[in-house]
Amino acid sequence: MLSHRMKSRAPEYKRQKATLMTIPQKMKAIVKAERAPGLTLVEDYPVPHIGHGEVLIRVRAGSICGTDLHIYHWDDWAQHRLKPPFVVGHEIAGDVVQIAPDVDSVKVGDFVSLESHVVCNHCYYCRTGREYICENTRILGVDRDGGFADYISVPAQNAWKNPAGMPLHIAVIEENLGNAIHAVMSQDISAKFVLVTGCGPVGLMAINVAKAAGARAVFATDISRYRLEMAREMGADRVIDASSEDVVAIVRDLTYHEGVDVLLEMSGAPSAINQGFAALRGGGVASLLGLAPGPFTFDLNDNVIFKGVLVRGIVGRRLWETWYQARGLLEAGVLKLDPIVTHEFAMRDFDKAYETFISGKSGKIMLIP
Amino acid sequence: MLSHRMKSRAPEYKRQKATLMTIPQKMKAIVKAERAPGLTLVEDYPVPHIGHGEVLIRVRAGSICGTDLHIYHWDDWAQHRLKPPFVVGHEIAGDVVQIAPDVDSVKVGDFVSLESHVVCNHCYYCRTGREYICENTRILGVDRDGGFADYISVPAQNAWKNPAGMPLHIAVIEENLGNAIHAVMSQDISAKFVLVTGCGPVGLMAINVAKAAGARAVFATDISRYRLEMAREMGADRVIDASSEDVVAIVRDLTYHEGVDVLLEMSGAPSAINQGFAALRGGGVASLLGLAPGPFTFDLNDNVIFKGVLVRGIVGRRLWETWYQARGLLEAGVLKLDPIVTHEFAMRDFDKAYETFISGKSGKIMLIP
Amino acid sequence: MLSHRMKSRAPEYKRQKATLMTIPQKMKAIVKAERAPGLTLVEDYPVPHIGHGEVLIRVRAGSICGTDLHIYHWDDWAQHRLKPPFVVGHEIAGDVVQIAPDVDSVKVGDFVSLESHVVCNHCYYCRTGREYICENTRILGVDRDGGFADYISVPAQNAWKNPAGMPLHIAVIEENLGNAIHAVMSQDISAKFVLVTGCGPVGLMAINVAKAAGARAVFATDISRYRLEMAREMGADRVIDASSEDVVAIVRDLTYHEGVDVLLEMSGAPSAINQGFAALRGGGVASLLGLAPGPFTFDLNDNVIFKGVLVRGIVGRRLWETWYQARGLLEAGVLKLDPIVTHEFAMRDFDKAYETFISGKSGKIMLIP
Amino acid sequence: MLSHRMKSRAPEYKRQKATLMTIPQKMKAIVKAERAPGLTLVEDYPVPHIGHGEVLIRVRAGSICGTDLHIYHWDDWAQHRLKPPFVVGHEIAGDVVQIAPDVDSVKVGDFVSLESHVVCNHCYYCRTGREYICENTRILGVDRDGGFADYISVPAQNAWKNPAGMPLHIAVIEENLGNAIHAVMSQDISAKFVLVTGCGPVGLMAINVAKAAGARAVFATDISRYRLEMAREMGADRVIDASSEDVVAIVRDLTYHEGVDVLLEMSGAPSAINQGFAALRGGGVASLLGLAPGPFTFDLNDNVIFKGVLVRGIVGRRLWETWYQARGLLEAGVLKLDPIVTHEFAMRDFDKAYETFISGKSGKIMLIP
Repeated sequence: MLSHRMKSRAPEYKRQKATLMTIPQKMKAIVKAERAPGLTLVEDYPVPHIGHGEVLIRVRAGSICGTDLHIYHWDDWAQHRLKPPFVVGHEIAGDVVQIAPDVDSVKVGDFVSLESHVVCNHCYYCRTGREYICENTRILGVDRDGGFADYISVPAQNAWKNPAGMPLHIAVIEENLGNAIHAVMSQDISAKFVLVTGCGPVGLMAINVAKAAGARAVFATDISRYRLEMAREMGADRVIDASSEDVVAIVRDLTYHEGVDVLLEMSGAPSAINQGFAALRGGGVASLLGLAPGPFTFDLNDNVIFKGVLVRGIVGRRLWETWYQARGLLEAGVLKLDPIVTHEFAMRDFDKAYETFISGKSGKIMLIP
Repeated sequence: MLSHRMKSRAPEYKRQKATLMTIPQKMKAIVKAERAPGLTLVEDYPVPHIGHGEVLIRVRAGSICGTDLHIYHWDDWAQHRLKPPFVVGHEIAGDVVQIAPDVDSVKVGDFVSLESHVVCNHCYYCRTGREYICENTRILGVDRDGGFADYISVPAQNAWKNPAGMPLHIAVIEENLGNAIHAVMSQDISAKFVLVTGCGPVGLMAINVAKAAGARAVFATDISRYRLEMAREMGADRVIDASSEDVVAIVRDLTYHEGVDVLLEMSGAPSAINQGFAALRGGGVASLLGLAPGPFTFDLNDNVIFKGVLVRGIVGRRLWETWYQARGLLEAGVLKLDPIVTHEFAMRDFDKAYETFISGKSGKIMLIP
Repeated sequence: MLSHRMKSRAPEYKRQKATLMTIPQKMKAIVKAERAPGLTLVEDYPVPHIGHGEVLIRVRAGSICGTDLHIYHWDDWAQHRLKPPFVVGHEIAGDVVQIAPDVDSVKVGDFVSLESHVVCNHCYYCRTGREYICENTRILGVDRDGGFADYISVPAQNAWKNPAGMPLHIAVIEENLGNAIHAVMSQDISAKFVLVTGCGPVGLMAINVAKAAGARAVFATDISRYRLEMAREMGADRVIDASSEDVVAIVRDLTYHEGVDVLLEMSGAPSAINQGFAALRGGGVASLLGLAPGPFTFDLNDNVIFKGVLVRGIVGRRLWETWYQARGLLEAGVLKLDPIVTHEFAMRDFDKAYETFISGKSGKIMLIP
Repeated sequence: MLSHRMKSRAPEYKRQKATLMTIPQKMKAIVKAERAPGLTLVEDYPVPHIGHGEVLIRVRAGSICGTDLHIYHWDDWAQHRLKPPFVVGHEIAGDVVQIAPDVDSVKVGDFVSLESHVVCNHCYYCRTGREYICENTRILGVDRDGGFADYISVPAQNAWKNPAGMPLHIAVIEENLGNAIHAVMSQDISAKFVLVTGCGPVGLMAINVAKAAGARAVFATDISRYRLEMAREMGADRVIDASSEDVVAIVRDLTYHEGVDVLLEMSGAPSAINQGFAALRGGGVASLLGLAPGPFTFDLNDNVIFKGVLVRGIVGRRLWETWYQARGLLEAGVLKLDPIVTHEFAMRDFDKAYETFISGKSGKIMLIP
């Protein structure tokens, strides 16, 4: 861990001699090696070969996401979905060091962030602008080798070119920022009251995006003081501690007893979901991103039907609209994302990094190969 | 009861000498007289006076709706909402016989159907085109005197002028048809696979509206053979008996394993709701109108989030867009609603009418004063 | 039909004692007195009586709009539309001093801004949420007495209640701000490149609103240095002098040769309209508010069809969605409108005020009774 | 950058034995051979080889489109755009006879219709669901070899699989039908008054699609009796001869003086465009597909701004939403397209076919190799 709350960052990306470097045969990688909890640092994992339409990325940084914890803990979901061994990590920024001959969307030397969903381009969803629910999606670090390693190969379309000077701590969280942007941008936000339930990293970024889009006010709930403090830093007009405060009553007070226009559900906690819907005004919109632990008792009558509410399931990013929106917002300078990246570790210290993430006392955590 | 499955109808409305008639002081009315089950035929209920902006309607027909049963049975909802005594009935067609001096939207002699939601025109919802969730809504036959009577008074804007020659059995169900139109027209239907869960009258009309709008195919589920037969008559391409058939498997088969694009939930039955969502494709749209008996176990992850589904609560009618749409569809002649009105009773035989409705072996039931 | 059943109502309300001051019988008013250029200060114009559903406003300030110039100059449009004598002025803020007995949406003492379009509430447009194109619209200061006077009467729904502490120079321009909000909010703005052609007051406010909504960048064109300087002050990222610079080339440069996503046309100048469309990217959206002097040569093929562009005519304000949006944005504090009000005159000095407005060297000009 | 890491691929696929017949080396093709009017039947044109991701189609039928006339006549547009020699024809149906090894979306033996726009999949438009304005579009029979020939090669994604039993005269016009569907489906049609200006093939099909989608009524204008008769056959409720009748007055009469809700402009004739806008109601939607001969005098004030109209440029088909919609409508059996294909010629008689098309006394004309 290099810093607790990092202030200074590497100022600018210098063009590296990557293209001249010999690409090695072996590399270091953090690997889900066995059908059991934990991860393994492998020193001699093969550097991936690229196939048709693919590119090879030398990783500059990765960041840890909630999904990575499921893999780490080897929970039910992980046991059903995963087929070790594979390299973990899907939030990745790095440099293009090799491209297949048929690739022209990026070139060697480009500084890129990776879209983690490898989509098929052929199914109904891909063919109608809804690639985020592609029925053949393969996710980096889940269904194929990820990027907590020295190198990763991806289809060229998954390598999103950044400006050369983009700070690394922004580039590495761009994929995760995309989840927040997808959720926020799915309905009108300008001049609207917005409630964000759940201040994990995506919730925190959603607060910031909603403010940038001219929300009337953004309220945020969580049960962690640490998270609520971060929510304030990210721009929430009022943070509400759901463990001790009456969320619905406070929101009613703050909104002239109308309720919020928009609910951005980022927690997956049934209690928060119910509070969110109770705080939502008639005709409001709820964008749901947080995954509940499972089915739970829900009141469709009061939450949805009587109020004429619109509910939208949010998964992944709109490909590639969300990335273009991220570019626009970052270029405009209206996002204030620096506080969200709270820690940085060398990749080989991944155990400490995961422990910190598990502690709940962090924002995004960067890993540097 | 005049006919089982009526074929012939009064061919055309003859202009009556209503304007010359003396409006009596007393009238017959079906009244919720006490805080107890049942209804009472009152022979000398006062004919309502009209206030500013109101009109007086001489009722030609009413029809029975599910809400009327709650009132009849004096269930929980009824006990909390209602304040007897009041005249019941909110699906009404009749003739304008008197107008307040400031009314110019209708005139004496007009043949009208009534919008049952009396909205305030002043709240946020009314002022932003969402009168159907007006926070001050007062419903005919629920919150103020209804129309199972000789006369009813309503605000002029609630009297929707019909062509003079519109058949009475169509005019009387126009309000209820509006529920179906609201649900169907809230998303693209043309060229889409549509599933209607629940073949009560609104579900049946929704089938017909979806077909008129060029659906790719409409499938309908219910657990009543009688209803399923009506669904077929209303145009369903395939009816599915949810009591004996595997709804989800059949829908998958019928849709090349894709699922339907649109779910129109009209049953309020948790099992049907869950089947409907299971049969809905990724990126699909669910319009929910049926009210469940209460909260129930629902899987937001699988039903909404992972699939990127849009869910919309449907209540009432869009005022007045839905009525204009009804006019357009009726005028175009693309709806085939005759089979939906299966019974007709004299209003004084209301007990037999309600019994028939309760039996489940009916479509819409008309009451004639 | 007059009836004993109607409670009789006074057609006009008597001056109530509830008002805090004595309302005089006569007042000062700026009047279009004759079918000729110019305006007249009348010292003894009758204070208006209020009718059913109306309120009386004591004017605190008015502001001048382009429409007022047409009336002043008695141009073609004016000669065909206007029927002198009448009080001019439609951008008005003031205090409610009297309400009809049936009014409860505002009360005596409320500080209000006026919506200038008096709509009928009965036509198709009013009944389907599109009151801004009500076919019976009567405009304050055009079709009925306006508010450059001590008092003005309006339907209660046209009196929009402000927070008591809202600065007068903001309240008075709120109606005009609504034009800008209507134009800006009619498409997605967040993360988009926006071009505003024409930096009159509405264009200037549109720049500010687009910035508040998180535009990627806002570019603005005009041929007046004064206006361009104001555009910069209102937040434009780049101002372009269309009299000396190559608008299209510059916009292309600023947008990586893509063009802007959104065109907000505020000038009505054919050359600016054509530049705007040329600078608009494929699939872009053009919201047109500025009125051209008349028909002109326009290339629908290149401007609209080949590029798959969406064009939207903008008139008035969405009633009342736009006013709610204005409330939200003002409350959020994301607008910076102070620079737009550049001058203030006593109402009796209206000639100087109009001259200043005509000079083009002003933003909004306030008149104080 | 060439690399040992790339598995080498053959740049061009060898004729496979998997095909059911021997694919010849030479074929007959209708070729734009020189920079001059006319076309040439070439007997020994090389059968195209397929590249990566491509398929070879044995043509069963082609149909003639307006674009083909520009090529035939060698007009201004043609002279600037085209680079002879190349095979013409872009409305094509046929059988897949060969696929590249990496293709799995279609297989040998599939009966397909061709999408004529070969899009890049990489540009902003392709990456945001707007492939129809792809900035690198290459059109079959315009920018690369078309299909008035025995064989044509296309990218696999351009081969849309039909049911094996689809009639050939439907399959061959499916691409052109897509233009009509794109235009019609771009706004709500159910329960709406629709005006189609221009009854060429796309206009005729638009009439039929609008009827299938439950329009309130569809009116159609043209100046050819032949076309108007076809319009009636395709389902128009009223056809209007613009050469002798007052289009605007008639439409007003037919719509209770409201005007139509939707204008589908298919003629490109300035007079028809102006009539269409004049007949469009306030708040209406105009979808423009017909290309005018050039810029012309247009009244943005009256046509667009004052009426709050939405105008949409329509080009090509939404890829691939439009094709899915076509599939849905065709499968539902709600389209009645048989009358639209009026002639069939052997491909070698192309001169007669073009003459017939030029005469204006035809619908779609099929060419059979």
